[in-house]
Amino acid sequence: MNFKMNTIEKLTEIFKEFPGIGERQAKRFVYFLMSKNGSYSENLSLMIKELKKDTAQCTECFKFFLSDNKKEDVCEICTDANADTSVLLVVEKDSDLESIHKSRIYNGKYFILGGLVPIVEKNTNTKIRISELISKIKKEKNLKEIILAFSLNPQGNHTDFYVRNQLKPVTESLGIKISSLGKGLSTGTELEYSDNDTLKNALKNRQ
Amino acid sequence: MNFKMNTIEKLTEIFKEFPGIGERQAKRFVYFLMSKNGSYSENLSLMIKELKKDTAQCTECFKFFLSDNKKEDVCEICTDANADTSVLLVVEKDSDLESIHKSRIYNGKYFILGGLVPIVEKNTNTKIRISELISKIKKEKNLKEIILAFSLNPQGNHTDFYVRNQLKPVTESLGIKISSLGKGLSTGTELEYSDNDTLKNALKNRQ
Amino acid sequence: MNFKMNTIEKLTEIFKEFPGIGERQAKRFVYFLMSKNGSYSENLSLMIKELKKDTAQCTECFKFFLSDNKKEDVCEICTDANADTSVLLVVEKDSDLESIHKSRIYNGKYFILGGLVPIVEKNTNTKIRISELISKIKKEKNLKEIILAFSLNPQGNHTDFYVRNQLKPVTESLGIKISSLGKGLSTGTELEYSDNDTLKNALKNRQ
Amino acid sequence: MNFKMNTIEKLTEIFKEFPGIGERQAKRFVYFLMSKNGSYSENLSLMIKELKKDTAQCTECFKFFLSDNKKEDVCEICTDANADTSVLLVVEKDSDLESIHKSRIYNGKYFILGGLVPIVEKNTNTKIRISELISKIKKEKNLKEIILAFSLNPQGNHTDFYVRNQLKPVTESLGIKISSLGKGLSTGTELEYSDNDTLKNALKNRQ
Repeated sequence: MNFKMNTIEKLTEIFKEFPGIGERQAKRFVYFLMSKNGSYSENLSLMIKELKKDTAQCTECFKFFLSDNKKEDVCEICTDANADTSVLLVVEKDSDLESIHKSRIYNGKYFILGGLVPIVEKNTNTKIRISELISKIKKEKNLKEIILAFSLNPQGNHTDFYVRNQLKPVTESLGIKISSLGKGLSTGTELEYSDNDTLKNALKNRQ
Repeated sequence: MNFKMNTIEKLTEIFKEFPGIGERQAKRFVYFLMSKNGSYSENLSLMIKELKKDTAQCTECFKFFLSDNKKEDVCEICTDANADTSVLLVVEKDSDLESIHKSRIYNGKYFILGGLVPIVEKNTNTKIRISELISKIKKEKNLKEIILAFSLNPQGNHTDFYVRNQLKPVTESLGIKISSLGKGLSTGTELEYSDNDTLKNALKNRQ
Repeated sequence: MNFKMNTIEKLTEIFKEFPGIGERQAKRFVYFLMSKNGSYSENLSLMIKELKKDTAQCTECFKFFLSDNKKEDVCEICTDANADTSVLLVVEKDSDLESIHKSRIYNGKYFILGGLVPIVEKNTNTKIRISELISKIKKEKNLKEIILAFSLNPQGNHTDFYVRNQLKPVTESLGIKISSLGKGLSTGTELEYSDNDTLKNALKNRQ
Repeated sequence: MNFKMNTIEKLTEIFKEFPGIGERQAKRFVYFLMSKNGSYSENLSLMIKELKKDTAQCTECFKFFLSDNKKEDVCEICTDANADTSVLLVVEKDSDLESIHKSRIYNGKYFILGGLVPIVEKNTNTKIRISELISKIKKEKNLKEIILAFSLNPQGNHTDFYVRNQLKPVTESLGIKISSLGKGLSTGTELEYSDNDTLKNALKNRQ
């Protein structure tokens, strides 16, 4: 038997890491590339290298962004002079930031934590950027409020709890408020089919 | 051609009115009944009549409930002496009330409006129990707050707006507050896939 | 605690036996009936009794059918003088017969077996009408072919195998052929996503 | 406005051509690549170029296959000395061939047509390899049967019809039979929910 993987197998393994892609579709991608003409593959291969060459990670919010030959090290959102510097919204990942930024409902600063805190785990601060967040908070002079914006699931709740505890010493001494996104009915929620927690939050946060 | 419907067709038409049942499943129900033994049908037929005989509509909250031979005219929730009489929760329909009551998160009074207000319509008060609601409010002596609890969709929002306007003259003169269920992230909401309205509400109602 | 079921609970139990209906929807049916006016329930109750009164089981094919006060005991399909009496199609249940009859692709006789043979079981002939089928075969004078028409799944295959073995002594002595529905690609089958058995049958039965 | 696309947009456009990938997921792929370390992108970029360098198209069956630096021009299936040279299975595309070959139910030769014939179209022979197929048939000395193996949908049926007509003059003069995959019940087919065509084929092809 031959234990050396061939190019088809190697490429399938790489595509399997793509978000939402399993073995079957990874293989379809490879066959697709085999059937396309050379210039398509050439172009794809080139663009992937270009992308990496131009991708920088913002030193302020830790978002990945396009920077011509990585000359800039702060993203276009963090350099926006019109942003409200009194609020800092902390999210789990790049796509959460994208989602909120595109909705144009928020005009403050952002910070990407880089993950959620697993419910059972010891050394969490190695995974998420808690020390970077604390440095950022200390550095921002106008900051009045930190908004924790995590998904409403057990890990998101746990992360909210964990981050609040970690930030407390700093925020209390600096007089900065910590808030979390509001809970209640979300668009399309039908009372009849709602879970107890949602009903409870909706009732508690009535207004 | 024979225009008189036979029993299969008649019964199919009746089952088609059941919630969530289309032509195909209605017909399956009929064939199912044809294949069951006589005592099953006999029993079903009897129970449907019994149910109707024992079903009363509560004169306080308008919920349908079991009353032995319709002797009582107020339901078990409205007769509960431990209920908080200072709050009145207004819902669209019986199943919404069931859902909230079972969650044990609310211990006040209820009122079933009997429907939502369609966004385009003239004579709405004929459809929903707005005058009954006003009478109920005037009658309840301890009432401090009315909570409007409608599903978070266009019709629910419209009904919230409509009911507030209709109640305003009464509640203002009596010093009663009107509130609505809180909006924001509901259980399971992922930021990345949230719509703008939910993000906006979650941000506005942060705490 | 009260261990006697009330009418709501009793009726929920009955509706739970309806095909495709679980606890939740069964309860919704009950609340639906509580909210409808009396004449709807009255009518439903009456029609269910009427249906049972008029339902007869055909003594030839064992299909349930509407018979005015059960005066006839043979269904409209079995009394059709134009039917081809040389073929007998054996199906599992009423809805299979309906499905084939409506498609107008078959003009012969039918027989409803009343179930499939479970793969692990001892006394099977008590469940399905194998002795009734043998009697029917002996009685039909023109019969040339019996078509076994079961769903293509393990139980269907097992039933096919079982019925063939049971019928063999009779059909061989009478010179009657036994066939089964053809296997291969069905409408919409895509080669790429086909299972091995389907590909194998399609290849074997190529023409 | 800036009409020049940036690398994110360009790469999104390329990923959108991948099978089953829409705008949204294409963009997720790009962000995923931005967030991965440099060696992952480097490796992916390299492998895509390697794959193309090693991919050859078999001159016999037109399948794409791995050939070290494209030195071989006939694939491993076509060079298999144990294959049955009396049958040629004609399929639409590479993945159909893979699917049948992996099922080990067929041991003959293959030919990939390169597409299906659209139902409304004029110049079809430019799209599919009909002339290459005819050449192949003339060249194969042992050939006794051609099996057309297309998906069972309108385009597949149309292609079956079209290819038969195109091959007829050649196959008739050479005494070669043309067959198509068998039709009927496929694995999991339930009679009750079958369409008319499937029932018709199953009945016609009973055995």
